[in-house]
Amino acid sequence: MKTLIKNVHILSMDDYFSEVKDGFVMIEDDLITEMGHVSELVSVTIQADKVIDGKKGLLIPGLINTHTHAGMIPFRSLGDDVPDRLRRFLFPLEQHMTKELVRASSDYAIAEMLLSGVTTFCDMYYFEDEVAKSCKEMGIRALVGETIIDMPTCDSPKPSGGYEYCETFLEKWQNDPLVTPIIAPHAPNTNNLEMLEKIVALSEKYNAPITMHVSEMTYEIEEFQEKYNQTPIEFLQTLGYFERNFILAHCILTTENDLDIIAASNGKARVAHCIGANTKSAKGIAPVKQMLEKNIVVGLGTDGPSSGNTLDLFSQMRLFANMHKTHNQDRALFPAKEIVRLATIGGAETLGLADQVGSIEIGKKADLTLIETESVNMFPIFDPYAAIVYSANASNVEAVWVNGQQLVSEKKMLKQELNKIKETLYREMKNFVLEAKKLS
Amino acid sequence: MKTLIKNVHILSMDDYFSEVKDGFVMIEDDLITEMGHVSELVSVTIQADKVIDGKKGLLIPGLINTHTHAGMIPFRSLGDDVPDRLRRFLFPLEQHMTKELVRASSDYAIAEMLLSGVTTFCDMYYFEDEVAKSCKEMGIRALVGETIIDMPTCDSPKPSGGYEYCETFLEKWQNDPLVTPIIAPHAPNTNNLEMLEKIVALSEKYNAPITMHVSEMTYEIEEFQEKYNQTPIEFLQTLGYFERNFILAHCILTTENDLDIIAASNGKARVAHCIGANTKSAKGIAPVKQMLEKNIVVGLGTDGPSSGNTLDLFSQMRLFANMHKTHNQDRALFPAKEIVRLATIGGAETLGLADQVGSIEIGKKADLTLIETESVNMFPIFDPYAAIVYSANASNVEAVWVNGQQLVSEKKMLKQELNKIKETLYREMKNFVLEAKKLS
Ligand SMILES: [Zn+2]
Ligand SMILES: [Zn+2]
Repeated sequence: MKTLIKNVHILSMDDYFSEVKDGFVMIEDDLITEMGHVSELVSVTIQADKVIDGKKGLLIPGLINTHTHAGMIPFRSLGDDVPDRLRRFLFPLEQHMTKELVRASSDYAIAEMLLSGVTTFCDMYYFEDEVAKSCKEMGIRALVGETIIDMPTCDSPKPSGGYEYCETFLEKWQNDPLVTPIIAPHAPNTNNLEMLEKIVALSEKYNAPITMHVSEMTYEIEEFQEKYNQTPIEFLQTLGYFERNFILAHCILTTENDLDIIAASNGKARVAHCIGANTKSAKGIAPVKQMLEKNIVVGLGTDGPSSGNTLDLFSQMRLFANMHKTHNQDRALFPAKEIVRLATIGGAETLGLADQVGSIEIGKKADLTLIETESVNMFPIFDPYAAIVYSANASNVEAVWVNGQQLVSEKKMLKQELNKIKETLYREMKNFVLEAKKLS
Repeated sequence: MKTLIKNVHILSMDDYFSEVKDGFVMIEDDLITEMGHVSELVSVTIQADKVIDGKKGLLIPGLINTHTHAGMIPFRSLGDDVPDRLRRFLFPLEQHMTKELVRASSDYAIAEMLLSGVTTFCDMYYFEDEVAKSCKEMGIRALVGETIIDMPTCDSPKPSGGYEYCETFLEKWQNDPLVTPIIAPHAPNTNNLEMLEKIVALSEKYNAPITMHVSEMTYEIEEFQEKYNQTPIEFLQTLGYFERNFILAHCILTTENDLDIIAASNGKARVAHCIGANTKSAKGIAPVKQMLEKNIVVGLGTDGPSSGNTLDLFSQMRLFANMHKTHNQDRALFPAKEIVRLATIGGAETLGLADQVGSIEIGKKADLTLIETESVNMFPIFDPYAAIVYSANASNVEAVWVNGQQLVSEKKMLKQELNKIKETLYREMKNFVLEAKKLS
C-alpha cells in the first residue's frame, strides 16, 4: 500500500531543519519512502494507491507527548484550583478507578491526542495493560508503564503491587511494533529504598526504560534533604538510575549538580518537561534553558488531564514560549523553530525513539501530522514555526498518520467514532462521578 | 423579532455568579428580555420567532477584548522572536499600510474575533474610520481610536496628524449604537507634552474616553525617570489623565504609587491587561493581583496580531491562569471563575460599558457567546469555568450574538464569507508582503 501526500509545506525537523515548500511525501506500508518537491512528482504519482491533497497545509512529524496519564480523563476540570489537590481529590478518587474505566478513559485520551496531532505518547498509571490494548486498537505509538507506588492502589490491594503487574506486563508486550512496555515508579519519595533498587534490577533484566516523576514537589526535595542530605536526583544516581534508559518527568526543582548528573549520563537520562501542568499548579518553571546548554535531551509533555487539562501539544508550545521567554527575560530565547523541535524530534529523543520517529526523513516510520492553514487563525504565515507555536490550536489538525496508517482525516477519526468512545466513558464514569460529588 | 436560546448552561457572570444549568434566554431586538430555567419555558416558547437549541452548551456573555490593533493582521507571524521588533519590522512596514489594507485587515480581524466569541473590542491604529466602518458592517461592538503619535504615519505625512483625524472622527461617530469613538495617544513617550495636554482637553470637549499604551517599555520608564524623575503614570496624573475616562493598556512596569494613582481615580482609570503579548516579548507580568486588591478594574486584551498573534480570549485566559499562579507561587490564586470574570464583565467595566454588556441579565444588550461541549477537549465538565479556562479554545465557539443579532452559527459567520474577506486581504497585502521580505 502506497499513499502519496502532496501539496504540503514540509517541516522535516531533521538536523538541518530542511523544508520543502511545495512538497510531497510517499508512504509505503509503515515507512516514509520518498519525499521532495512536487515538480519531481510525475513518475511518483503513477505508483500511488491513494493520493491525498494537503491543500498547502503544514506537514510536520507527528507530535510527541512525553508524559501523560491517559487513564485520568475522568478527573478533568475537577478541583483545578484547590491546594493539595493530590491528597484531597486524586488519591481518594483513584480508589474508584476500575479496569473498564481506565480502558474507556484511554480510548478517549488517545482519540484526543490523535485529533490534536499527537502520534506517540509516554504513559504511566494503573491497569496499564488496558492502556496498551487501547493503543493497539486505536493505532497510536506509545511507551506504557504500570505505576509502582508504596500504597494500595485501584489495581492492587497491597502496596507496591505494581511491581509484579509490571513484570507480567513487560513479558507480555515485548517486541510489539507500537507499544513499548516500560517501568514507571511513581516518584522517589513514594517508593521505599528496597523497591527503588528492585526497579533498577528489573530494568536491567528486561532492558526496559524507566519513567518517574522527579524533583516535582517541594516536600519531595525536603524529605530527601532531611533523610539523606541529598537531592532526589543525587539519591537516584547512587542507585544506578542514571546508567539506565531513564525518562525523568518534570525536574522543576533541580540544582546545578542535578543537571550535571543528568548531562553526565550522555543521553541515557532525558527530561519530559510539562510546562502547562507545572505552572498551573504554581510549582515553578524547570530550567530548560540550562538543560539544553548542558546538552540534556528535553521533550514536551502535557501531564495528565487533571494537571494539564488538554492533551495537545499546541497549548504546551505556546505556554512554553511565553513562560521561558519571560522567566529568562529574553524575547529572542527559544525561537518558534526550536519549540517545534522540542515537540517533535526532541520528544522522540526523550522517549528513545529518534531512530524511528520525530522527523520526516526517508526510512523513518510514517508518523505525520497535517496542519491546515485555512482557518481564520492561520493567516498570514511568514514563519510556519511561529504560526504553529503562536497561532495554531488543536483544532487546526487536519490529518494524522501513525506507522503509515491514516487515523485522522478531515479533523475526524477514521477508525473509531468519538461519540461511541464518549458514551462508553460516560457510562463507566457513573460511580466515579458520585464519589467525586461527595468530595466537592 | 424574538429569539429563544434554550437548553444551555448559563454562566451569567452577574454579581452573584448566578448560573442556570438547564437554562433559556430570550432576545427581543437588541436586548435580553427573559431568562430562567427551561421548566418555566412553556408560555415563552410560543412567542418566539426563532428557537435555537443550545445542545447543553455553555452560554456566557460575549467575551471582551480590551486592547487590540485590528489593522495589523498583515504582521502576524513576522519576526516574532526578534529583539527590537518594533523598530526593525513594525515602524518601517507601517509606512506601507493603506486605507484599503487597514479595512481588509479589520474585516478579517473582526471575523476572527467573532468566530472566537469576542463581541466587543477596543482598537487603536491608523485609518480608524475604516475600522469603525468595518465594525458597522460586521456587526461587532467596539471602542475605536485613531493613534496619535509624534512621527509621520501611514495616514498622515506630518507628526501628530492623528490629532486632527481624531477630532473629525469623534464628530462623525457620536451616538452610534455599536461604535464608540475614542482618543488613542500611542504612549506617553511617543507624544510631546503639548500634544498630551491637547488630548486631555479634547477628551473633555467630546466627553471621549482615552486609551494609551502605558508603562510597557523599559526605555519608556527610563526616559520619564531621567526627564521628570517621575513614572509615566505620575507624569500623566499631573496632566489630568486620571480625571478622564482612561483605559491604560499594559501597566507592566508599575510601582505601588502608580497603582495607588490608578486606584484613586475611583474607576475612571482602568487597565487592559495583555498577558500573552507581554510575556511573549518577555516584558514581564503586570501586577494584576495587587491591582485587584486595590479595587482597580482590569480586563483582558490580546494586543495586536503581531504581538499576541491570535485575537481570541481563550488563549489569554489560559496564559493568565498559569502565568499569574506561578508568578505569585499560589495555585489557588485566580480560580477559573475569576478569570472568566475578567474576560467578560471585567472587560465591560474596563471599557466603561458594564451598564450595557458583560453579563447575562435581563435588560442588558444581547451580546452572547455559546460554547459547545461536544468536542473532545470539553469532557468531562465538573466545573464549567475550569473547562473554559483550561480546556477550551477558540474553535469551541458555536454561536455568537451581538446587540441581539446572530453573527456566528455552527462555527461559521452568518453575514459574511470568511473566504471572501481573506481573498480581499490577500490581494491588498501584495505590496506589504514584498516590503516585508526585504526586511527579513
Ligand atoms: Zn504526571
Ligand atoms: Zn498595543
